[in-house]
Amino acid sequence: MSKIPVIEIFGPTIQGEGMVIGRKTMFVRTAGCDYRCAWCDSAFTWDGSEKDNIRLLTPSEVFQELKLLGSHNFNHVTISGGNPALIGKPMMELIKIFHEHDIRVGLETQGSRWQEWFTLVDDLTISPKPPSSGMKTDFDVLDRIIENLDENRMSLKVVVFNDEDFDYSRMVHKRYPSIDFYVSVGNKDPYETGDISSRLLNSLDWLWSKVIEDPEMNNVRALPQLHALVWANKRGV
Amino acid sequence: MSKIPVIEIFGPTIQGEGMVIGRKTMFVRTAGCDYRCAWCDSAFTWDGSEKDNIRLLTPSEVFQELKLLGSHNFNHVTISGGNPALIGKPMMELIKIFHEHDIRVGLETQGSRWQEWFTLVDDLTISPKPPSSGMKTDFDVLDRIIENLDENRMSLKVVVFNDEDFDYSRMVHKRYPSIDFYVSVGNKDPYETGDISSRLLNSLDWLWSKVIEDPEMNNVRALPQLHALVWANKRGV
Ligand code: SF4
Ligand code: SF4
Repeated sequence: MSKIPVIEIFGPTIQGEGMVIGRKTMFVRTAGCDYRCAWCDSAFTWDGSEKDNIRLLTPSEVFQELKLLGSHNFNHVTISGGNPALIGKPMMELIKIFHEHDIRVGLETQGSRWQEWFTLVDDLTISPKPPSSGMKTDFDVLDRIIENLDENRMSLKVVVFNDEDFDYSRMVHKRYPSIDFYVSVGNKDPYETGDISSRLLNSLDWLWSKVIEDPEMNNVRALPQLHALVWANKRGV
Repeated sequence: MSKIPVIEIFGPTIQGEGMVIGRKTMFVRTAGCDYRCAWCDSAFTWDGSEKDNIRLLTPSEVFQELKLLGSHNFNHVTISGGNPALIGKPMMELIKIFHEHDIRVGLETQGSRWQEWFTLVDDLTISPKPPSSGMKTDFDVLDRIIENLDENRMSLKVVVFNDEDFDYSRMVHKRYPSIDFYVSVGNKDPYETGDISSRLLNSLDWLWSKVIEDPEMNNVRALPQLHALVWANKRGV
């Protein structure tokens, strides 16, 4: 297949979490996921509820749509999902188009699949899923993915909802001690309407306390999802 | 003088802003400043209101106090003020002690003075002050400071309160385009008690809109002061 199943293209907006937190970026969200996380905040990418919005686009169509939306007002694109790692060759072409136009590329994927084009990504975030997701990490796969990547252009990020998740994040950090490591507070209810900032800030306060008192977490970065703080659960921003 | 005028030592806590946002750190806050910013959130370091808390400590006394407070529970110390760049040789000694103990060092200074020991700092933030501060940047001094530093271990950060400040931040970013650049929302009232998070999140929303619509700000990182979001204006956290 030489096309990419795209469910959303939007921006310019601000990256709210992880290694490029606070940076202006465009988003390309692909359809489909090999996981079914209990608290998935992007379930519409795989649960069929928005299957009429999925479009099969060539890499150059994706690029044209981004330029139409963002004009000269961006130089970074984040590829997110679903799991973009389900897609092969056309993603490689897309990233090459971006680089030809001096656009940097970020990727978010859970680390369940390897793709050759990962090596081209400038800011690669692998986010293995903690126990509360209901998913199980295949560490043999994850080991091989991380071995093949450039440590300076990647990070690990674990979303944490509870103590068990925190222990999981500590274990992952210990397994890959030289990789930049982010813990992020989970959004317990991605469909709640209205202002959710005090709930999220309380969770961050809790996560910070856990990190502060744990000498094995001296190096990690503990961050919120800023976009959820500022824009609550709005879509397409 | 072989001692450091210290007004506060605290931690472990989380760095709430700038290039190491979200990272566990200890704080050493020095007394004295050559500026008088209108909205200074650390005026107690220079306005005489807490002069009885200023202690002259040797570098090794500072280190011992940090170990007493933080034990093995940290590997990063942030030196802040006031303006720590008013202090010379004992700061060099202090940083050497930190490095001998595998502790990384961050520094925050406004860029009005150069010190030899800047070159030893691992995460150096220069934060020139915008028009709303009432201060004037000496760009000859700033040019010379930045020329002498390693770009990979430093960043620029400008606190923004209004449109004029934003224009100033854009001008600074343009002058030093290769330096990592952060804009941060100002806290209009550092003495307000109670929950200030919605005020700060509204300011961040405003700053993000400014950045999003400005093609000259494609590369910057626009961030809040997370500690103020989580802990409001509390001191010593
Ligand atoms: S991996 Fe991501 S997109 Fe897939 S189910 Fe989990 S949270 Fe949702
Ligand atoms: S430079 Fe910093 S410490 Fe000095 S007056 Fe300005 S805000 Fe306060």
